[in-house]
This record gives sequence, structure tokens and C-alpha cells, in this order.
Amino acid sequence: MSDVLADSQPTDWRLVDPRDTLYLELPSGRVLIELAPGFAPRHVANIKALVEERYYDGLFVVRSQENYVVQWGDPAEDPAARRPIASAQASLPPEFYGPITKDLSVTLLPEGDVYAPNVGFSHSLPVALDPATDRLWLVHCYGMVGVGRDVAPDSGSGAEMYVVIGHAPRHLDRNVTLVGRVLQGMELLSTLPRGTGSLGFYEDPGEYVPIKSIRLGSDLPVEDRVALEVLRSDTPTFEALVASRRFRHESWFADPGGRVELCNVPLPVRQQPAEPSH
Amino acid sequence: MSDVLADSQPTDWRLVDPRDTLYLELPSGRVLIELAPGFAPRHVANIKALVEERYYDGLFVVRSQENYVVQWGDPAEDPAARRPIASAQASLPPEFYGPITKDLSVTLLPEGDVYAPNVGFSHSLPVALDPATDRLWLVHCYGMVGVGRDVAPDSGSGAEMYVVIGHAPRHLDRNVTLVGRVLQGMELLSTLPRGTGSLGFYEDPGEYVPIKSIRLGSDLPVEDRVALEVLRSDTPTFEALVASRRFRHESWFADPGGRVELCNVPLPVRQQPAEPSH
Repeated sequence: MSDVLADSQPTDWRLVDPRDTLYLELPSGRVLIELAPGFAPRHVANIKALVEERYYDGLFVVRSQENYVVQWGDPAEDPAARRPIASAQASLPPEFYGPITKDLSVTLLPEGDVYAPNVGFSHSLPVALDPATDRLWLVHCYGMVGVGRDVAPDSGSGAEMYVVIGHAPRHLDRNVTLVGRVLQGMELLSTLPRGTGSLGFYEDPGEYVPIKSIRLGSDLPVEDRVALEVLRSDTPTFEALVASRRFRHESWFADPGGRVELCNVPLPVRQQPAEPSH
Repeated sequence: MSDVLADSQPTDWRLVDPRDTLYLELPSGRVLIELAPGFAPRHVANIKALVEERYYDGLFVVRSQENYVVQWGDPAEDPAARRPIASAQASLPPEFYGPITKDLSVTLLPEGDVYAPNVGFSHSLPVALDPATDRLWLVHCYGMVGVGRDVAPDSGSGAEMYVVIGHAPRHLDRNVTLVGRVLQGMELLSTLPRGTGSLGFYEDPGEYVPIKSIRLGSDLPVEDRVALEVLRSDTPTFEALVASRRFRHESWFADPGGRVELCNVPLPVRQQPAEPSH
């Protein structure tokens, strides 16, 4: 894989738009999340509105469930006691899936999937497709970011968000709106102490992990931003990367395999090179 | 799933044999690992020999790689500088897979798998099968425990062991000998700070996490043992559990799904009830 990336061209990479990047500031450091407005436009717009009204600042990571998710929001159990939402929407129609559009480039994985008729990558994100129902959806792989909701499908707003920190919980696919993925700082979330309450919620408020702030990259002075690039999934380099994970030619492997599963394909991220590479 | 377990019968559960249970004592607490002598008899016997000679005591967790594995052993880079192995073997023929034996009960998953012709559960462990080559092997799901090795397939002994703490790294299947799985205390491993070196190795010896001791349950006074039971995978209750994960009937689910993947099936563990339940 490192050989594939070393051979990559500058055009294989896409600069992450600071207007679509969340900077989540925890006491332990910074987590960078790329939002996916192409897949969940209403929820992404609402999260940006929540960021703009500083909704998240001073709230908490309230849940850390082993082999599952970390989640943040307002810890108040009674919705009426939670921080009021000002300009943003308090609930939104779900964006669990969308139509399969012709102008959306999808790099399909030929080996298929247990859960969906077709899977692959679009805009450097894992996606699944069902041509029979004309549906396409983002997939719950490790590091994907979703919007918590109550029982009603339209009860999510982005005020509560979660990140997958375990084996891909694919049963959540098409049940919650995914809004992006973590590009940097996953380990700050995945190593948080697990909550001992039901579903991994922290039982003692003293365990809550404070959210200092969430900002968009575009709200920050340029010198405070991190210029990240993701490997484009619609490139021959990405196909070569998938192939390098399908057959393992490194000498350590006694059995090179021959197949690769959707959530086992890495989605490379790098710091933008200071000078264009050549 | 809780309904299925509440309806279970005492005979649905198997008491874990203390002679096959590792008690890994870390500064943060205890990790319990059930060994799988039915799948890797030589490696399990060697690990028991290593335990008996107190090989692991005072060694360290030396590696914690994000979305991958935690590993322990002797941190010395030069094999000649490592703690000498006394009575146990320093290398063993690999047990990457075995033959498909007729007297081995396997509960197959009808939805199949991306990596293997057939998958299912045997002795409450995830397994894969290839009838064409008459091979059966344990699968790298979250919490599975394996034996580190160098490039030579027979270079593993059990002196180094690792635990999967991320999305199932299935490319390791049939490349390393799996020897069991963690039954309790996974969170003590999965939340360890990640190493910043290559492959998640700790760069500073001050980061090593001490292993106070590893013992077999049968070596401990009865009052210090934890009597755990695992749900047998060859029972109608287990089939009902798989079905409950395949179709999600809870009211929260907008889409009940209809399929389940091998490593997403939980393998329930419980404290042995004080009185036989009825």
C-alpha cells in the first residue's frame, strides 16, 4: 500500500474543503471530521447552523460503548431541559439513503457484500447501492460519523452525533443519517474510557468529556487550519490501493488472500504537501 | 437479543474451563481469555507451558495500533536479547487452519461471507470453512486472540500475543494462529493509548503497559477465579440470537435489515448463576 501511495500523483488527491470540515476540540486534542453534503445535504446544513450558533460548545461526550460508538450532545435526559436550539432545526426529515444518481461516480467492489446488493466508494466514502429500489447510502464503517435520533425517524437534528469505534455496525445502515467521517484524531475518541451505564453512557457526570468547541475550518484563521487531502476514490491509484489490499504480496503473508471487504479498505488521508509533488 | 437470553435454559450455556482460561493481570485490571485447544492444540499447550514457567510476568504490552491490534511480549528488538524460553517451544508449526472434521459442530450463517466459502460458529467461536480444500479456520473478529510471528510461518510460539481491537482484519485469517478470544476486560485493551511508532508500537519504553502476570484459572485458588459461561453456539437459543440480529424488530429500527455478518453476531458471556436458573 505504501508503494501505491508513493507512486500517486497530485491529481489523485482532493483537498478537503475547510467549509466542510468540523474541528472538534477535546481536552486531549483535536478531531477533524469531513462532512458529506453530497449525501446528507439537509443534515450537514443543519450541523453547520448548530456550529454557527455555538450549540456544541461546552456540551459533552456522554457515551463510549465498547466495540460500538462514541456519542456527544447535551446529557440532560429530559429533552425539555436540553440546551435550546436557536437558528437550526430541531428535527429533520431523514436522509438515510438517496437515489442512485448517474453523475455520482462509484468505484464498485466486485467481491460484493453480505448486507447490500452492491458496495463501493464514492467521494472517498464507503457506499452501498440497491438498484432494485434505486437507493444509495453511506455505510457504517469504522470512523464514520452519524446523527443520533430517538424512535421517530425524523427526530435527528445533528445536536447529537456519534462516531463508529468498533466493528462496522452495518445494521445501522439506512436507519440513521450518516454525515461524514473522521479524518484525523480517531484515537482521541476510540480510547475514551467506556461508560458503565446501559449502551455505554457515562453514569457519573464527572466522567463526561467536555467539548471545548466545534468549529468549521473556514471559521478559523488560515494559520490554525490543517490542510488535509484525501485520496480520490475515482482514480486508478485508488483501484491499485484496493488491489494491494485484496492480494497481499508482502513476504509476511503465507496466504495472499484474494478478496477484500468494504470496511477493510483504508481511505488514505495526508497533510497537503508544502510543495506540489512531482 | 435480551429477550432471547432471558428465555435461555441452563443447558444453553457452557461453563468455561479454568484450565483453558488465561487471567491477564494489567495495572488497570484483569482480562480473561478463553483458549481454544480444539483449534490450535499445539499453540495452546505451548502458551500453557509459557504460563507455567512465568514467561509473561513482568513483560509488557508493547503495541496498540488504532483500529487494529494490541500486542504484548518482550520489547527487545534483538531476539537474542529477549527473555529466554525455558521449557516451552520457541517456535511451532503453524496452526493457521485444520481439516473440516465431521464431529465438529458448526452453525452456518446462510448469508455467506466476502472472504470465505462458508462461515459460522463452532464452540462459540467464529469460523470459516472451505470444503474445496478441506480447511476450517478461526476468524479474526473483534476480541479474537492470536499469536504474533515473524516472516517464517513457523516462527510463532505464543511468546507474543495480540488481540483484535478494530474492524475485523480478515486478511490475517489463515496467516496467523488464532488461539482464543477475550471474554471479559476487552475495554482494558481497546482503550490503551495508541503507540506513535510504526504499526502502533510504543516508541518510549515509559509507555509500555506492564503485565503483572498471566495465570491459568486452574492455577488460582477457587475463590479468585471468575466462573464464566458462554452461550453454546450449537443450540436453538443461539439460532434465535442470530435471527434477532438478522431482523431487528425493535421499534427504533426503520429498516429491520434481514442479513447479518459473521463478526456482527455477539457471542454472549455471563457470570455463572449462583443457583441453577429454571
